Amino acid sequence: MDVSRYDRVRAVQWRGDRLALLDQRRLPFVQDFRTCLDAREVAAAIADLTVRGAPAIGIAAAWGVVLAAREVQAADGAAAATALEPALSALRAARPTAVNLAWALDRLSVALPLWGGDWRERLASEAAAIEAEDLAANHRMGLIGAECIAPGSGVLTHCNTGSLATAGFGTALGVIRAGVAQGRIARVFAGETRPWLQGARLTVWELQQDGIDATLIADAAAAHLMRSGAVQWVVVGADRITANGDVANKIGTYALAIAARYHGLKFMVVAPSSTVDLATASGDAIEIELRSGDELLSVGGQRTVAEGIQAWNPVFDVTPADLVDVLVTERGAIERPDAARMRQAFGAA
Amino acid sequence: MDVSRYDRVRAVQWRGDRLALLDQRRLPFVQDFRTCLDAREVAAAIADLTVRGAPAIGIAAAWGVVLAAREVQAADGAAAATALEPALSALRAARPTAVNLAWALDRLSVALPLWGGDWRERLASEAAAIEAEDLAANHRMGLIGAECIAPGSGVLTHCNTGSLATAGFGTALGVIRAGVAQGRIARVFAGETRPWLQGARLTVWELQQDGIDATLIADAAAAHLMRSGAVQWVVVGADRITANGDVANKIGTYALAIAARYHGLKFMVVAPSSTVDLATASGDAIEIELRSGDELLSVGGQRTVAEGIQAWNPVFDVTPADLVDVLVTERGAIERPDAARMRQAFGAA
Repeated sequence: MDVSRYDRVRAVQWRGDRLALLDQRRLPFVQDFRTCLDAREVAAAIADLTVRGAPAIGIAAAWGVVLAAREVQAADGAAAATALEPALSALRAARPTAVNLAWALDRLSVALPLWGGDWRERLASEAAAIEAEDLAANHRMGLIGAECIAPGSGVLTHCNTGSLATAGFGTALGVIRAGVAQGRIARVFAGETRPWLQGARLTVWELQQDGIDATLIADAAAAHLMRSGAVQWVVVGADRITANGDVANKIGTYALAIAARYHGLKFMVVAPSSTVDLATASGDAIEIELRSGDELLSVGGQRTVAEGIQAWNPVFDVTPADLVDVLVTERGAIERPDAARMRQAFGAA
Repeated sequence: MDVSRYDRVRAVQWRGDRLALLDQRRLPFVQDFRTCLDAREVAAAIADLTVRGAPAIGIAAAWGVVLAAREVQAADGAAAATALEPALSALRAARPTAVNLAWALDRLSVALPLWGGDWRERLASEAAAIEAEDLAANHRMGLIGAECIAPGSGVLTHCNTGSLATAGFGTALGVIRAGVAQGRIARVFAGETRPWLQGARLTVWELQQDGIDATLIADAAAAHLMRSGAVQWVVVGADRITANGDVANKIGTYALAIAARYHGLKFMVVAPSSTVDLATASGDAIEIELRSGDELLSVGGQRTVAEGIQAWNPVFDVTPADLVDVLVTERGAIERPDAARMRQAFGAA
């Protein structure tokens, strides 16, 4: 499959001596790249949501380490590891809940002390590998996921899981790209994803760049859409998948899974294996990030709710494994994931 | 029960020679009454959403007819009926989907030709009766509905069904007011209700006026809230209830009903008997109003979505009767409504 025409957006761009990040806070109206010249600027860009999406954050952080290396004099990797510790810590702290951020930094930190005088080049190769592997995993997941979808299907997605959130192509949006390219997916719907509106601001724009029509809906309209017969699949990403197959993802995912099951529709989760957290037994053990209620009290900087009102603003929820019909990672598709199937697929080799 | 301290807002106020309408487009930040001196102004206020909520629209329209009567010379009701036809038509056309608008105008139109020289006074009495009966029905429904709710419960509501939408006290919000007054309801949550944000702009403000704390949530957070154990009931209003008990209501209601059933929570619909439409067999026969997608593309006048994107914007959905645990009207509570129970409760006497 030639996917190139279905993947025009690159949010994280290494330019040899600096990192350019497409500022996702200003999309879709301003397409502005922010240039980071050192690790501090990368950490700030992660913290302030210039770059978002767990895989994209991990990749940006890896390039941040490469930038930090330019300011360090060290004869070998062991010395470099010590010298780079402050930069690694700053990047790690930029957004502590994003799984792939820690994963990417760990990957560099573990290898670095073993390298010799060429540690700087090897660091850059490893960052490039993290990025390339993410893109390859997404292409692979796209094909694996699309294969599950019957021709002529409609799909509904949530939040943004596309090129903007990854090295490219995306996770759930990668499956949608592949499914559209193969003629399997005939209709794409995107929930607007309150309160940040990632669906409204990012997903439909990103698909528009690739010439893929997507129809925006209010999150609350999803069940009515399902009843209409227009969609056969709900396809979403994941922020963490526990040992029993429970899925933490953007708030609203759980309601979509419940409604999909009620309507007899299929529910697919698409995420790289680095999202799988076998150390956590089930979704009950995941701490759900509660953000400020202010995100619900204003829209676009304009207050919409009376003073003195409290809002409850969890930004993730947990979908129990038994509502997941297919879990797609770059290793393959797992139908109806449970602890045994998860262990089989992801357990220690 | 003394409900007065739980019902401070009056959105539709007849002031002897003019109708004052609390402008709901400007709430919660500006509390401004718009004065209507004739039926044309009332029709315009209904059409532009200055006044909203099916019962409130019906009451405003009835007072609109009273205003129109002041411009008519007629010896008796029959002559007045002819002379008032243009005003009645204009009011009827102001918002054709609101059930109570037609219901209130029909009630006046049917009686008017039978009246003699005192037709003008009788028209005013009838309008006052429509308003008073709505308020009384709401108080009654509040008590009936609250009785179903166990002490210490949490409730989630959707859209605005309160004093702003009725003559006062409200339908679903009336049950919540009564339940709070009786100490049965310990926690109130309101979905923000995209795209118009009636929950965010109106419901939490209206409850705040009465000293009732309500916590705002994103519509997409409802299922996660249910899983947390904080709510035991979902309590909503209705725009139309068909002969088999299916319920048309604000978009998002259906998803709440599905999620409530999934979590083993109770789902209550509260609406006056004038909302029951025995002439329509089931929800499948209800035409769902599709409004402009523009309502999803901008927030507060500020565009949030890229140009060229299409949005699908149904503003109602249908909840099948088998997801409704209790239907409350002023005539009583019907558990698990179906065609037989609906016929028994509302069939022709």
